Amino acid sequence: MEVFSELLVLLVTARLFGEIAERLGHPSSVGEIIAGMALAGIVVLFGGDVAFLHQLPDSDVLSMVANIGIFALVLFAGIEMEPGEIGKHSKAYIAVAGGGMVAPLLGGVALAWWFLPPSELKQAQVLIAGVALSISAIPESTKILSDLGQMHTPAGRTIVGAALFDDVFGLFLLAVVLAMIETGQVPDVSAFALLVGKVFAFFTITVLLGVHVYPRVSKHLKTMQAAALEFSALAAVAIAYGWLAEVLGMHWILGAFMAGLYFERSRVGVRAYQEMRLFFSVVTRGFLGPLFFLSIGLRVSMEAVTEVPLFLVLVIAIAFLGKMVGGGVPALMTGLSRKEALAVGVGMNARGAVELIVLSIAQHAGLFDPVPGDGPIVRNLYSTLVLMGVITTVLSPMLLRRILLRTGRE
Amino acid sequence: MEVFSELLVLLVTARLFGEIAERLGHPSSVGEIIAGMALAGIVVLFGGDVAFLHQLPDSDVLSMVANIGIFALVLFAGIEMEPGEIGKHSKAYIAVAGGGMVAPLLGGVALAWWFLPPSELKQAQVLIAGVALSISAIPESTKILSDLGQMHTPAGRTIVGAALFDDVFGLFLLAVVLAMIETGQVPDVSAFALLVGKVFAFFTITVLLGVHVYPRVSKHLKTMQAAALEFSALAAVAIAYGWLAEVLGMHWILGAFMAGLYFERSRVGVRAYQEMRLFFSVVTRGFLGPLFFLSIGLRVSMEAVTEVPLFLVLVIAIAFLGKMVGGGVPALMTGLSRKEALAVGVGMNARGAVELIVLSIAQHAGLFDPVPGDGPIVRNLYSTLVLMGVITTVLSPMLLRRILLRTGRE
Repeated sequence: MEVFSELLVLLVTARLFGEIAERLGHPSSVGEIIAGMALAGIVVLFGGDVAFLHQLPDSDVLSMVANIGIFALVLFAGIEMEPGEIGKHSKAYIAVAGGGMVAPLLGGVALAWWFLPPSELKQAQVLIAGVALSISAIPESTKILSDLGQMHTPAGRTIVGAALFDDVFGLFLLAVVLAMIETGQVPDVSAFALLVGKVFAFFTITVLLGVHVYPRVSKHLKTMQAAALEFSALAAVAIAYGWLAEVLGMHWILGAFMAGLYFERSRVGVRAYQEMRLFFSVVTRGFLGPLFFLSIGLRVSMEAVTEVPLFLVLVIAIAFLGKMVGGGVPALMTGLSRKEALAVGVGMNARGAVELIVLSIAQHAGLFDPVPGDGPIVRNLYSTLVLMGVITTVLSPMLLRRILLRTGRE
Repeated sequence: MEVFSELLVLLVTARLFGEIAERLGHPSSVGEIIAGMALAGIVVLFGGDVAFLHQLPDSDVLSMVANIGIFALVLFAGIEMEPGEIGKHSKAYIAVAGGGMVAPLLGGVALAWWFLPPSELKQAQVLIAGVALSISAIPESTKILSDLGQMHTPAGRTIVGAALFDDVFGLFLLAVVLAMIETGQVPDVSAFALLVGKVFAFFTITVLLGVHVYPRVSKHLKTMQAAALEFSALAAVAIAYGWLAEVLGMHWILGAFMAGLYFERSRVGVRAYQEMRLFFSVVTRGFLGPLFFLSIGLRVSMEAVTEVPLFLVLVIAIAFLGKMVGGGVPALMTGLSRKEALAVGVGMNARGAVELIVLSIAQHAGLFDPVPGDGPIVRNLYSTLVLMGVITTVLSPMLLRRILLRTGRE
């Protein structure tokens, strides 16, 4: 009985805030995170009186649903990207991806290194701050781009292509961080080489399967016209890749992501692609996503705003400027116009689900656990990085829309 | 890591057996149950050597997935039925539903009463045997009917309409049985009246909401063209109904079923209906269903065949003849031809998912738990009833196809 009442309250709350956010022109995920933050406030105020509220932050059901949500969201993020299409049209994204990743990564690492007190976890915390700043999300930018008919312009293609590379590289860095948390230190050269080798092996296997085996299986399934079978096949591949990733010592989200990545229109057929895209869109936007984003917000503390205001502002500024300069300058140098380059730099600032997933996994791995004696920065690190993600994800499409509309008129 | 390897093995095994069954012309669920029985055999033979196999029957992951599967399967069963359409075309189904339910119910109760040794649970066990025999599943018969273009013939409509009534009444009886297990006895008149009152209240609330509120909400959502929002709304309703059912002391599957039942084409719009139908078809046929059916098969013991062969044969015979006579005779009397009436009696024999869900819930409630001193009948009761369900579900569409093809040629 508690499972149902809890799920009902959480789902309705998350969706309500998500819808309000959408009506106001923001991504629904932002509303859903705010729903979680609002619920967290209510828990603090009234939690003692209501057993259900009191247990909410440690809820097994919510944590289970959020985990399934991460799996589906990452798989869906992979499905929405079409790596086979990207290389065809533009090469600028490689320089943009590199610059747009390295600049905020280094900026985040330097900032965190400066602010965080020394501790066993400092190296890993510093690196995860860098990773969080370096992620670029595709879905939100894509929505604006296609709303404005700019998906297939040089700027649009560059944003999408660069975001793909930054996500893949961000997930690779997550694997490094998780290894660091396990061993408690930066891996030495041989351990790092082994990790890189494993990651390389993983990508080689999954890319080869994606390129060569996906289309054959799909061709076979296509003649059978069975959506359920496609779903079974995709689910089995995602589970198998997740398993492979874990066997190689990486996180299973890499597997789910790669399973979705090569599930693209040109390889599996338009019908299969559209059916699976609808399926994952429905389940992630209608159920799993809202509960995942709410669970993210539930653990955010607004104390970050009052306790570490300078750190928060600097993190947001470096995150934004890092992407804008690091992505925009190479875009300008590879031949895009000033406004297009500005659009690229701004458009890469939406950090969306993948950044939050990385933070959620790092939190569960214990990276943000308070240790006696660590200061307000460590205590508020998780909240600061989530707030940075939320704010840049809100700002990016708003500014992108302005820039692109301006470009359109000239 | 274990979660992924376990899910992968179970999913691939279930789907493989399911596909083979489909190729041979049987429902995929039958193949998936056999996959579970095969795995159970392997566990007995090699379980000691492989930790993963050994724990399989008590697997938390499988049990969680199977529970989510029950929720989705019952919701989907509700979605596939269109109560608003049934009453319009034919009234024969009321007599057919009554006869087709009462005959196998009484036959099953009498048989179980005769064979089962006296115990505290005997009354509940006897009643669940009757309920298991009295269920009619729609999906499998529907498939054959629409394959042969007989969905909208008098026989087709009667089968679908009667099966709907039998399922609803079967779920009501399940509520009675669960109450009996809790109190340990047949409810007395006042307790029974209270239970009936609660069930009546539940149906009144959900039917009124279904008839009056569903179309308004849907009309509003329709203008927004958002599949994710429809799914959120449907999920929220199903969860709320499940909660309501539990508050009133019934099982949550009644809630999930009623949430799906009034989600029909004419009320929510064709697009919303088709999108949700595709969604649930994909997730139940492609993932949750196979794992649920496999989990059912995993707990079946083939010892029933050697230990209680007479009981098994009688259960199957009474199940089949009960539906055939109890459904066929009223069909004949309400004006259907001989062959149509035969088709109705045979077509109502597919017991499918709902019967297995009822058995699964009864098993988890402890109804089939072995007690020292109870004989082979009790020990094999669950397996016998599952085997009856499987065999009648295999036979029914095979025979129905023959009868309808014969009718078609005349």
